[in-house]
Amino acid sequence: MTSGHALPEWSVQTWLNWPGDAAAPSLDGLRGKVVVIHTFQMLCPGCVAHGIPQAKAIHQAFPPDRLQVVGLHTVFEHHDAMTEVALRAFIHEYRIHFPVGMDMPGLQGQPIPQTMQAWRLEGTPTLLILDDLGRVRLNHLGQAEDLRVGAILGQLLAEAQHRAAA
Amino acid sequence: MTSGHALPEWSVQTWLNWPGDAAAPSLDGLRGKVVVIHTFQMLCPGCVAHGIPQAKAIHQAFPPDRLQVVGLHTVFEHHDAMTEVALRAFIHEYRIHFPVGMDMPGLQGQPIPQTMQAWRLEGTPTLLILDDLGRVRLNHLGQAEDLRVGAILGQLLAEAQHRAAA
Amino acid sequence: MTSGHALPEWSVQTWLNWPGDAAAPSLDGLRGKVVVIHTFQMLCPGCVAHGIPQAKAIHQAFPPDRLQVVGLHTVFEHHDAMTEVALRAFIHEYRIHFPVGMDMPGLQGQPIPQTMQAWRLEGTPTLLILDDLGRVRLNHLGQAEDLRVGAILGQLLAEAQHRAAA
Amino acid sequence: MTSGHALPEWSVQTWLNWPGDAAAPSLDGLRGKVVVIHTFQMLCPGCVAHGIPQAKAIHQAFPPDRLQVVGLHTVFEHHDAMTEVALRAFIHEYRIHFPVGMDMPGLQGQPIPQTMQAWRLEGTPTLLILDDLGRVRLNHLGQAEDLRVGAILGQLLAEAQHRAAA
Repeated sequence: MTSGHALPEWSVQTWLNWPGDAAAPSLDGLRGKVVVIHTFQMLCPGCVAHGIPQAKAIHQAFPPDRLQVVGLHTVFEHHDAMTEVALRAFIHEYRIHFPVGMDMPGLQGQPIPQTMQAWRLEGTPTLLILDDLGRVRLNHLGQAEDLRVGAILGQLLAEAQHRAAA
Repeated sequence: MTSGHALPEWSVQTWLNWPGDAAAPSLDGLRGKVVVIHTFQMLCPGCVAHGIPQAKAIHQAFPPDRLQVVGLHTVFEHHDAMTEVALRAFIHEYRIHFPVGMDMPGLQGQPIPQTMQAWRLEGTPTLLILDDLGRVRLNHLGQAEDLRVGAILGQLLAEAQHRAAA
Repeated sequence: MTSGHALPEWSVQTWLNWPGDAAAPSLDGLRGKVVVIHTFQMLCPGCVAHGIPQAKAIHQAFPPDRLQVVGLHTVFEHHDAMTEVALRAFIHEYRIHFPVGMDMPGLQGQPIPQTMQAWRLEGTPTLLILDDLGRVRLNHLGQAEDLRVGAILGQLLAEAQHRAAA
Repeated sequence: MTSGHALPEWSVQTWLNWPGDAAAPSLDGLRGKVVVIHTFQMLCPGCVAHGIPQAKAIHQAFPPDRLQVVGLHTVFEHHDAMTEVALRAFIHEYRIHFPVGMDMPGLQGQPIPQTMQAWRLEGTPTLLILDDLGRVRLNHLGQAEDLRVGAILGQLLAEAQHRAAA
């Protein structure tokens, strides 16, 4: 596991599972925490079968003051099917309780949304794990094993704790 | 397993995975075959996790001239999320190749669609199995075990064969 | 599914889960019932993961007066590990309640036991399904899908019922 | 997760998957590494279904110079079934490649073997995780989630690395 670069800030049109009067979540504002970003599409079978359940399990297993799970809905196909109203129903039915941002639509009618483009993601589901300094420590397309994901999270939490104590 | 009554004909607004110039499928027209009807909603987690994969497996395992699998999209909640365009994307992504009918919306703004109402279905997924005489031989809400479903299908296929040979 | 030949009678040294004072089970005595024979070795991973749970599920799902599940322990390797005392502990721990016969050791020190040899089985787990006339209707090495196994059993039960009623 | 006490040294009668001419593994000799001890019985269904696959996955996922997986066969029932020859066949069939110690039989005919008794283990499978200082950091009876186990291992590896660098 090599340490990586920071990501440019996400571009999100709407946040779900986030209080309307609160300042929008930002990568910058999450510095100091380990951040798990699950990028998905609600009609992507691999996201539904593996990615979403894993993100929910992470959200339940770790303390929210030290680790933040964020969903990012990066729609690059079937745009007229995966609308905000559809995503809201999906989040309700699948009992997702962490914040989910809707990636900003691509400029000039491009199908790839803006954050997905800026981060050069290659598909869904992609799991991104950032350490407390905001550096990418995992960028994984497809199904990621729980054991491996857990090990990365445990290491990053220990690193963060160590830095906080220094 | 007791033999049951015939169902009233379905009311379908649109058929997907069905040639546009062909006569619409009907229960009446399927007499002589064993019929498996998987009623579902595309945003129902149990349907996606269990019902759809089982219906696809049945579709692949049995000869189409003796057994017909039919999907029926019976939307009773989140109507503005589970539209035709969304269902088309879902069918594409989940690689469903059997015909899927969209149940006719409830009269006078009722949330329960017409076929679901007429058949008194209690939720999704519901698996209905009809014998070659059109009688309901299984009506199961929730996850149904493959072993049990297979046994019913095997018996009904044998009954149909026996009647055809008589 | 083609109809097959009858099997020569099994050669069993000891029956477990069978009353000691009862006549030993025989293929001949089971005529009239559908018979499911799960041949296995207690230290075969595929048997433990798939074959045994499937045989237990069949045993629970079907009426014992119409379908008989029989285990046959066909040890062809690690003979000194898979002894009768070990098999008894295995049957207890895995809560197997159908009769299990221990295949008769190979003649003249041959590793393949006698029934396995006579039936020309190629490994474990092998699932054999016989119809009510004693004919082999499935002979499957490895993991067999529940849906397919259920369909065969349903068909054979219907055939048996039809013959009994004739 | 609280830090715990060190364990008394194990009492092992025979090591499998360990070179005969090498010094026997000891807790003392493993100081400096994270140690994962999977205590099991070869005829315990939960061990076979969950514990052994998890221990194998840990063995494959982490660097052996920083983390050591050890199996401990703690037989407290069916002693005449789970013999050394049976365990050797089991290890071969289940492709276990980490060292496995056979716990020393209980004194004066007691069914609980000596290490299991000394460590006050309550059953199988029990997963024990020790940090590089030999302190117990997890003591879990039954199925343990991969995500949680991974997180503990990641944290302990980070702690060990930090201490080694200090």
